[in-house]
Amino acid sequence: MSAPEQVAQNYSFDGTITKYKGTAAALGGLETQFNVFLPKQALDGDKVPVLYYLAGLTCNEDTAPWKGGFLRDAAAEGIALVFPDTSPRGASIEDEDKDWDFGTGAGFYINATKEPWKKHYNMYDFVTAELPQLLEKLSLPLDLSRSSIFGHSMGGHGALTLYLKSVLASSPSTKYLSASAFAPIANPTQCPWGDKAFKGYLEGGLEEGKEYDATELIKQAKGKDLKVLVDVGTGDNFYKQKQLLPENFIAARDAAGFTEKDVSVNLHDNYDHSYYFISTFAPAHIKFHAQVLKGASKL
Amino acid sequence: MSAPEQVAQNYSFDGTITKYKGTAAALGGLETQFNVFLPKQALDGDKVPVLYYLAGLTCNEDTAPWKGGFLRDAAAEGIALVFPDTSPRGASIEDEDKDWDFGTGAGFYINATKEPWKKHYNMYDFVTAELPQLLEKLSLPLDLSRSSIFGHSMGGHGALTLYLKSVLASSPSTKYLSASAFAPIANPTQCPWGDKAFKGYLEGGLEEGKEYDATELIKQAKGKDLKVLVDVGTGDNFYKQKQLLPENFIAARDAAGFTEKDVSVNLHDNYDHSYYFISTFAPAHIKFHAQVLKGASKL
Repeated sequence: MSAPEQVAQNYSFDGTITKYKGTAAALGGLETQFNVFLPKQALDGDKVPVLYYLAGLTCNEDTAPWKGGFLRDAAAEGIALVFPDTSPRGASIEDEDKDWDFGTGAGFYINATKEPWKKHYNMYDFVTAELPQLLEKLSLPLDLSRSSIFGHSMGGHGALTLYLKSVLASSPSTKYLSASAFAPIANPTQCPWGDKAFKGYLEGGLEEGKEYDATELIKQAKGKDLKVLVDVGTGDNFYKQKQLLPENFIAARDAAGFTEKDVSVNLHDNYDHSYYFISTFAPAHIKFHAQVLKGASKL
Repeated sequence: MSAPEQVAQNYSFDGTITKYKGTAAALGGLETQFNVFLPKQALDGDKVPVLYYLAGLTCNEDTAPWKGGFLRDAAAEGIALVFPDTSPRGASIEDEDKDWDFGTGAGFYINATKEPWKKHYNMYDFVTAELPQLLEKLSLPLDLSRSSIFGHSMGGHGALTLYLKSVLASSPSTKYLSASAFAPIANPTQCPWGDKAFKGYLEGGLEEGKEYDATELIKQAKGKDLKVLVDVGTGDNFYKQKQLLPENFIAARDAAGFTEKDVSVNLHDNYDHSYYFISTFAPAHIKFHAQVLKGASKL
């Protein structure tokens, strides 16, 4: 595994946002791209904490740096941001590009176990294990021991599940200190998007999919120390179509004994599924993670 | 002229951003789209001041609301934002879509006087006269007597020239109270982009183009009360290629007796031509205009 190659770099908010490309074993050896925002503190030599952002269906590694409004607050807090792509690309699988909610742009942050997807569609392993290794290869001034994760929609599902799985695992590849999500697919085994994805990617279908379902996972986390923030707009058409199901996640949270303080889920009138919604709550999400990451002991 | 029709609406930062489409006489009767951000103060019934944003080459009415990071500060200041498109679209002129720096997406905020462009390519009249009329037809809670303008690149050229022309005119269609620009084409009669545009759109070529050249216009504004802010990154490839020429604008400013306080032009190391640069300086630009607009007497 060689170090990724720099594709582009822009200055922003006294820091830099750099696009890299590299080959990923977890993605069957395909090339993948990701963006890294380094705040001024990192350019000055400090090892800064890392906040990963997972984007939603049809998006890629550029969507959130362009439209999320995250860099401003990350710069102020001195936190690095890492933006991976949403799926492998160019796996040459038949019908890979046919649907917007399956295949390219729709990796769902799982490890596929079903043919013909299992060789390439392993975004779970890529994000949790290989991406941090690629960042280490780049020798960037990052303190990977202080990592958190957030995301939107499919990526909100990804953030919640990767976080909860890291809390539940005895020795996770990455231990995330906090998770937040904008309009996450909070109970994918019970909604059309998750149904299609899990039956398509997983040999065990929805039953196997439960290990990638935030509402299932939080039940197992009873007694753990959780730090979760979720925001959902009730004007969101996908919320209305019951693709997101935050109520199921809230019910599971309550049943597991977590409070609104541990796992805060907020519904907002009028807001929808777009980056106009995300950017509105971006400052609060960055602040939430900053308090955890900057309060954690340094490397 | 009927009122524009609402195409889409999103909530953002406690306000709304609404896309409208309407037919524009200045654009030869073509349909055009624009976005309007209304802050909460307007939704609550206050008549708020208006800040127009003119985008650059290849962009449209969505580019800046998505990528500029302007809504957050406009919301905090209680200022409306209006985002027109960058040119007419669908005029069915031969080669209209051939080049990225001429024709579609490249209206240059002038009134064309040359065939075959003169019927449709009149973004100057559209932005200064017809767009405010369309806003009035919509009966939005806007105080159009308090209007300012800003923009990027070609749109920075547009903002500076529309402002300076409004300062110089005895009875302008819109009197802009302040102007700001990110990486503007500050002396278009002396750079390749302006050369191509003015020779292409204007019967009188570069000589006629001087009336749309900020460096020419500021010479005529001697003695006027100007409020202008310009930011340019010296890592900008178009700056390096001498498409922007802020130095010429600075020299003309100085020769006309304006100070850095009246017409502030700042060069920034490392920053480039992208929205990563724009969003970095967005808060300062909104603050600059807010001080002028909120200090002006209300309707």
